[in-house]
Parts: sequence; structure tokens; C-alpha cells
Amino acid sequence: MECINLAPSRLPLSSLGSLGVRIRRDSSRGQSNRFLGFRSPRCNKMFVPGFGEASPEAKAAKGLQDFFTYVAVKIVLAQLQSYNPEAYEELMEFTSSHSLKDGDKFCRTLMRQSPRHKGLALRILEVRSAYSKTDFEWENLKNLAFKMVDESNTKLMREYVLETSHLENEEQ
Amino acid sequence: MECINLAPSRLPLSSLGSLGVRIRRDSSRGQSNRFLGFRSPRCNKMFVPGFGEASPEAKAAKGLQDFFTYVAVKIVLAQLQSYNPEAYEELMEFTSSHSLKDGDKFCRTLMRQSPRHKGLALRILEVRSAYSKTDFEWENLKNLAFKMVDESNTKLMREYVLETSHLENEEQ
Repeated sequence: MECINLAPSRLPLSSLGSLGVRIRRDSSRGQSNRFLGFRSPRCNKMFVPGFGEASPEAKAAKGLQDFFTYVAVKIVLAQLQSYNPEAYEELMEFTSSHSLKDGDKFCRTLMRQSPRHKGLALRILEVRSAYSKTDFEWENLKNLAFKMVDESNTKLMREYVLETSHLENEEQ
Repeated sequence: MECINLAPSRLPLSSLGSLGVRIRRDSSRGQSNRFLGFRSPRCNKMFVPGFGEASPEAKAAKGLQDFFTYVAVKIVLAQLQSYNPEAYEELMEFTSSHSLKDGDKFCRTLMRQSPRHKGLALRILEVRSAYSKTDFEWENLKNLAFKMVDESNTKLMREYVLETSHLENEEQ
């Protein structure tokens, strides 16, 4: 869900129209009209353009889906390694020649490689679903993300201050 | 937190040692010893190798941090567009020549471009922190990810069945 809040400028609601028009210069051309349907004067969220009809949450979820496929492949490899070295070698060979960036594409190709590969693909699909629902620690993800953003912000600002104060000292 | 569960093979705990040795063939060389510290007989999670000393949650959080930087840039651009066209143009120009894939690198470079760019970078840092903490819908992310994984699994299997049953019909 994407909403409007023009903080820190806090423009009155009457000026939203002009924003809607101007946003067409953004890469998400033509979406401003669609957003009109989502606007609510009670919504205090910052306006996030550029996601078409999807939401930032949907885009992040797609990224996580690919990540879960990557994790599922790692899990299945670790399982196979201990009791089915042949299948392990086959899957290792496949992963070395096929990118895991797009999880669905990877599974689609793996499925069509051979009946044995199909079995591995089905297992990866099963594991990624089970992993995301039972093993992945969602609350931990949220806390880690908050912590990382804060720590990175502090680090970036500290680095900049140290660098510039050093330059100022040299100039004096 | 990464734990051990060898499902579906369900090896007894006494065989974990051999798994620890064999895992050294994986890209995460030398981590098996470190994992020994995390092992607990009460933990029912699937073993996820390949993350070094970090966890899958930490890796996913890093990905989300970069995503929040991307979203923060979009938000700041939308805000600037309506009341500061000059700064908008400057930031647009910078984004067109610098990748947003690594959020921290982007901000680090932006900060050192000029004093005006530094102001923009500080605002992006502020917005990515506020966005992740107040606007981003974490529960929605979780639900969307569950839904996407299930839908993609069904879609991939349906496609495969349709494709192979079609081939079988042709062969008959």
C-alpha cells in the first residue's frame, strides 16, 4: 500500500494534484492516475513512486522468494551430501552452470533437465516453502534490518566527519 | 541462527560429525567447526550452510537495507520534485550515473560530491531509517512472501504437468 505524505515539506492536500502530474516525469510513467485511487487524507505514509501497480512490500517479497530458493538449494545440497553423493554431484554441477538469481527460472530449468533433476527441483520447491514458513526468523530479520540501517547511518556519518575534520586540520 | 536437522533423512546425531567434515567441500570452507558451537539437540531447524558467521536472516536484512536505500531515494526525489526542482535534477543526474545496488556505497559517494549533495545524502539516510521503522509493512511482507512462494510452486508444477502431458498425448 502506497500513500501520500509530503514530509518534510508538508504541502496542503490541495497541492497533491500538481504532484500527481509532475510524477509522470519519473520512470513510472502514467501511474499517477492509478495512485489517485489509493490516496487517503488519513494516511501518513511517505509517497513511494516507481513501483507501478505493485507495492514496495511485494517487490521485497519477490527478492526474498529468490533468496529462499537459494537457501533451499543450500539445504538440499547439505542433505544430499550426507546420504546421496551422486545426486549431490548432479545438483552441484547444475548450480555451477545455472544462475540462482532468478529462483523460479532455476527451478523451471532444473525440472526439465532429467527425471532425476525433476525430483531435486520438487524437493527444492518443498524446502523453500517449509523454510520460509517454519525456519526463517521473521522477527529477527526485522530487528536486524533496523539495527543495520542505524549502524550504517552512524558509520557513514562518522566516516564523513572524520574525513572532513582531518582535511580541515591539514588546511589550518 | 542456523541449526541442524537432516530431514528427510533424519540421521542420528552421532552422524553429524561426518556431515561437518563433508561440508568443507562447500563454498563456505572451514565453517563447519564454527557451527559446532551452535548445535543443539533440541533444535529442529534445517541446516543451512554457506553463510559463514552470519545467518540467512542477516543476509536478507542486508538485502533489505539496500532496498530501503533505493526506496528512500525514490521518496526524496518525489518530495524534491514538488518544491525544489534544482535539487531534484541534481539527484536525478547522480542516480543516473551511480548504481543503487549497494546503498551504502551510493550514499558514501553522494556525500562527498558537494555540500549540497551531502545534504541530500543525509536526508536519504534519515528517510531510509524512518521508512523501514514506520512505513514499511513487515507483516504484509511476510504474508506476501508466503503467498508468492506457494503460488510460484503451484505454477511451476502446473506448467510442467501441462507440458509433459501434452508431449505424452502427442506420442500416443
